Amino acid sequence: MSASAWNPVDARFAERVRASFGKQSFMETLGATLETVEPGHVVIRMPWNGRLLQQHGFFHAGATTAIADSAGGYAALTLFPVGAAVLSVEYKVNLVNAAGGDALVADGRVVKHGRTLTVCDLEVHAVDGEGKTLCLKGLQTVFCAIGKKGTVD
Amino acid sequence: MSASAWNPVDARFAERVRASFGKQSFMETLGATLETVEPGHVVIRMPWNGRLLQQHGFFHAGATTAIADSAGGYAALTLFPVGAAVLSVEYKVNLVNAAGGDALVADGRVVKHGRTLTVCDLEVHAVDGEGKTLCLKGLQTVFCAIGKKGTVD
Amino acid sequence: MSASAWNPVDARFAERVRASFGKQSFMETLGATLETVEPGHVVIRMPWNGRLLQQHGFFHAGATTAIADSAGGYAALTLFPVGAAVLSVEYKVNLVNAAGGDALVADGRVVKHGRTLTVCDLEVHAVDGEGKTLCLKGLQTVFCAIGKKGTVD
Amino acid sequence: MSASAWNPVDARFAERVRASFGKQSFMETLGATLETVEPGHVVIRMPWNGRLLQQHGFFHAGATTAIADSAGGYAALTLFPVGAAVLSVEYKVNLVNAAGGDALVADGRVVKHGRTLTVCDLEVHAVDGEGKTLCLKGLQTVFCAIGKKGTVD
Repeated sequence: MSASAWNPVDARFAERVRASFGKQSFMETLGATLETVEPGHVVIRMPWNGRLLQQHGFFHAGATTAIADSAGGYAALTLFPVGAAVLSVEYKVNLVNAAGGDALVADGRVVKHGRTLTVCDLEVHAVDGEGKTLCLKGLQTVFCAIGKKGTVD
Repeated sequence: MSASAWNPVDARFAERVRASFGKQSFMETLGATLETVEPGHVVIRMPWNGRLLQQHGFFHAGATTAIADSAGGYAALTLFPVGAAVLSVEYKVNLVNAAGGDALVADGRVVKHGRTLTVCDLEVHAVDGEGKTLCLKGLQTVFCAIGKKGTVD
Repeated sequence: MSASAWNPVDARFAERVRASFGKQSFMETLGATLETVEPGHVVIRMPWNGRLLQQHGFFHAGATTAIADSAGGYAALTLFPVGAAVLSVEYKVNLVNAAGGDALVADGRVVKHGRTLTVCDLEVHAVDGEGKTLCLKGLQTVFCAIGKKGTVD
Repeated sequence: MSASAWNPVDARFAERVRASFGKQSFMETLGATLETVEPGHVVIRMPWNGRLLQQHGFFHAGATTAIADSAGGYAALTLFPVGAAVLSVEYKVNLVNAAGGDALVADGRVVKHGRTLTVCDLEVHAVDGEGKTLCLKGLQTVFCAIGKKGTVD
């Protein structure tokens, strides 16, 4: 579904996403930055960094998953009302190719938006001078928490 | 299934796990350490650290998932033959409670061990002075790669 | 977690589960019956039947998953208040061994019970005269719908 | 990825898929038929049937999942060499809308094809006179078994 299929209820959705992203210290630890914030679609980029690797010298699946999780969560947040918090309920990811390259780029896209639960498609590509390779494909369920902070219930 | 249900083919399984863990620079970045290495069961601990958080001040799901993924992968590796590499095919995690506390403790346990694919149960608990709380429950598929490095095929 | 860890808010939980199960025509089509209904734990049994098979003569993964899904959903329903409906949000299953034998037995067990979302562990064993074999391991998220029928939102 | 991205190694892939589908007695029990068989893409249709329902009168998630699982498995099989068997390792599905309508239509599409493991995207839409609604979104891992039948190992 194209991003334009979604109509945010709050015109300042991008501002809210950027503010929340700025509070995720883990994104700073990963060196990850917010590239794109559109209705129902968020892109996060994480450059190659020798401190994020697994035993074979590729990005650790946990680091790859972290940017996918944030991309999906913030894609959902673009559609949430003012004052609502976003929390990941669960996700499943397939690590389909080794995650190398100059950077990883995560796309989170809303597949279904509901009042309480939103479902997102997750993809992470490894990019280098020659092109891009899909390294993670995932599916995520996100919770819209209104009037309570930090907990799925 | 209790850890004692599994019989490693290589008596030096713990040494192999520790050597591989030592090559995961991301575990060092997370401040995570290997606590227990038993046949079919590995425990990883990650102390509270302000650089690993999400927007509400809890551990980021990506950091929590990273230690769960490594715990499951290394639980599988304890049962692999000498020379085999371990790679995560996929995992699914539910983030069942907010991940706070003094530290997170991840348990990876082998549920099914096959020649090519091994399935692990994943749990992460938040621990503090008062006890422990389940914060992640997951299920992971791991690949045993013989004679090739770093790729699932 | 043992079933006894859960305290249903409604003493007639088993009656509600049996009534709802009786409305699932698909369970009758599968020949599946409700074996056990305890707080946070439900067991469903499906005898061998030549009409439920995949191409190699084992139970089709869809049939195996169907009883796992109902077992988990009804395990959650035992803890729901009167008038609440149960709906599966999502599940992930690993098919860890071929599903043969005289019957399949599905156990759904509540791992985390929340006001809106409940997470269940799913297992299906193949049973025959010689014992039982784990053939499915899964993890499920269930929605508690109050005052609306048939929809997750 | 479009279906045309995949090049089957065996020109008679559709014949092999149809022969295997014909051996799945469960598909006959569900009233499901094979609609489309293309390289890396298979469509299965299941008309409305009062024997396949859950407690609210919609298709049971297990029936919906069954056709998604077969669609993904056979999408993978189109790319397998002659003599190879297809087995589902695992899948995760989100049930994003109630599954009603005149029929359900499942699309399985290959996302990544490997020698041993293939990953498929799964979607099921409910169709009626007015259009179609996404009711299931999933991700599946499939095993290519050469020289052994009916088992993932």
